[in-house]
Amino acid sequence: MQTTQVRLARRPHGEPVADDFETVTADLPPLEDGQVLLRVRYLSLDPYMRGRMSEAESYADPVPLGGLMVGATVCEVVESRAEVRAVGDQVLSYSGWQTHAVADARYTRRLDPDAAPVSTALGVLGMPGFTAYAGLLVLGRPQPGETVVVAAATGPVGSAVGQIARIKGARAVGIAGGPEKCRALLEEFGFDAAVDHRAPDFRERLAEAVPDGIDVYFENVGGEVATAVGRHLNRFARIPVCGLVAGYNATSAAQGPDRLDGFMRRVLTKSLTIRGFIQDEFEKEHFGAFLEDMSGWVREGRVRYREDVTDGLDNVVAAFNGMLAGRNFGKALIKIAD
Amino acid sequence: MQTTQVRLARRPHGEPVADDFETVTADLPPLEDGQVLLRVRYLSLDPYMRGRMSEAESYADPVPLGGLMVGATVCEVVESRAEVRAVGDQVLSYSGWQTHAVADARYTRRLDPDAAPVSTALGVLGMPGFTAYAGLLVLGRPQPGETVVVAAATGPVGSAVGQIARIKGARAVGIAGGPEKCRALLEEFGFDAAVDHRAPDFRERLAEAVPDGIDVYFENVGGEVATAVGRHLNRFARIPVCGLVAGYNATSAAQGPDRLDGFMRRVLTKSLTIRGFIQDEFEKEHFGAFLEDMSGWVREGRVRYREDVTDGLDNVVAAFNGMLAGRNFGKALIKIAD
Repeated sequence: MQTTQVRLARRPHGEPVADDFETVTADLPPLEDGQVLLRVRYLSLDPYMRGRMSEAESYADPVPLGGLMVGATVCEVVESRAEVRAVGDQVLSYSGWQTHAVADARYTRRLDPDAAPVSTALGVLGMPGFTAYAGLLVLGRPQPGETVVVAAATGPVGSAVGQIARIKGARAVGIAGGPEKCRALLEEFGFDAAVDHRAPDFRERLAEAVPDGIDVYFENVGGEVATAVGRHLNRFARIPVCGLVAGYNATSAAQGPDRLDGFMRRVLTKSLTIRGFIQDEFEKEHFGAFLEDMSGWVREGRVRYREDVTDGLDNVVAAFNGMLAGRNFGKALIKIAD
Repeated sequence: MQTTQVRLARRPHGEPVADDFETVTADLPPLEDGQVLLRVRYLSLDPYMRGRMSEAESYADPVPLGGLMVGATVCEVVESRAEVRAVGDQVLSYSGWQTHAVADARYTRRLDPDAAPVSTALGVLGMPGFTAYAGLLVLGRPQPGETVVVAAATGPVGSAVGQIARIKGARAVGIAGGPEKCRALLEEFGFDAAVDHRAPDFRERLAEAVPDGIDVYFENVGGEVATAVGRHLNRFARIPVCGLVAGYNATSAAQGPDRLDGFMRRVLTKSLTIRGFIQDEFEKEHFGAFLEDMSGWVREGRVRYREDVTDGLDNVVAAFNGMLAGRNFGKALIKIAD
């Protein structure tokens, strides 16, 4: 069996381009005991992947040059030498940017296609949804009546943050790019307010949207949006930080003035809590509760989600860049096979 | 009865100068029921006072122009119309930069001169000691074997942080200015390592002093020291922020490059917790335990302290500037009367 893989050919400088990758067809090894052969159906595109393309210190090692790009996938088992997996099973795997894979069955999770579309295991019922759930509930701890603000709010993390905040009785304010996304925040995702960060009067609109200040700012973008939000943080506000998408393609530090001292002064005078996190640190303790809560909320229509599906591994680089730039609308997926 | 007061005449630009203040003698009102007349013996000088001289947003309102400079004091009761206070009582008050004061007895705390020198109510057994205790134990939560780093380490907060860290089984690394202070950290305060931030090889020495990285950085200075410390923070490190003395006289943001994005990236990739705090938010829950623990530790010689006493209210501005610049050695006090 062969697989077509997208490998990292060189480290991108700024926004990745096609020549940073190479597409290679390779033979897969024969199955060993306990392994399954997978046909990849969906590949998840997530901002953290930009970090894996770089050598800068991060929470995980970079993809080596010439190595297969990493990523979570939903796959169908096409051959099995593991008792726990049968041909035709739909599974969550971490097989990367390729069409087929051999995996240890223990590192796959079986999905129930009757419970929810299997692609949701990469979005609302997967890592992005859990990032929202754990970051908001364990770290943000919104109280009824408090104001929660999240940017990239139509994305898979942001939309879940706002909807969970509302389920917990808080006020949800979403920031997104463009009027269409802002309309969806109000009409589709049920946010209490939506603010377009591309609008010329963004700062004034943000101020109007948070008359009682901000108690939880769920940080996933950084940059100018975060700076604007900072002015409205209440005393004892909590800021879970799961991503800083705005800077992922940055090639050098922004020019001055240096904002760090002012930021720290605000941390001090407002008794802020800033907490960086990666969802896997909460997996053991909270993933079970997440799956139960979130599946229920999705079933009841209390949490909605969108997917933005691009066909074909050939289009992965453009789709990835589109996601980092916010041109997607909902969870970014590559559909590799039916 | 008259009092001599130091009032704020104008808002300092950068380091305060004599002309920013005026010394005025004024009549005190006659005592009302429940009040006491106080003769101020010691005035505490603390970095937070610089914030009160400015109009920048902070956790407390600025001192108005023409207003009495605020500050904690140890006083003797010289006249009492409150049953709970007798003439001769030593009390902690918040009477500000003056020689005498009329105070509501309920807002004074009686001190026991036999238990500890009364001046310690402004230092190791007062607000600075409690800042160290609450910030380190409630927010920093050092575990046995972990590494705790604190700057301004011979100061009243820093020296307590290091000594409490050691009592809890952690490794204490102090940063201070000059070889004399560093020697005192090792020989007098029992730190495991001391690093001179004025030494040309400060960064190398700091790296040597934290071979296992840093688990708790108790932030009270900010500036270049904080930047150097940042490189060594371990995953899940905690950073209680009680002050940013290095920037208190700053008149504008530092020139670029902008360090904020890099800082936030570290928060994210290391799952850091940054938490600003003012000690009074923990007073209700923890001050009783603090007084009991800390009094015991001081009595047993497990926590030592130094005081840096300047005579006379005339010298208050110079002594205050000396403290902000780190020229003091130990808790900065003005002795106003015997």
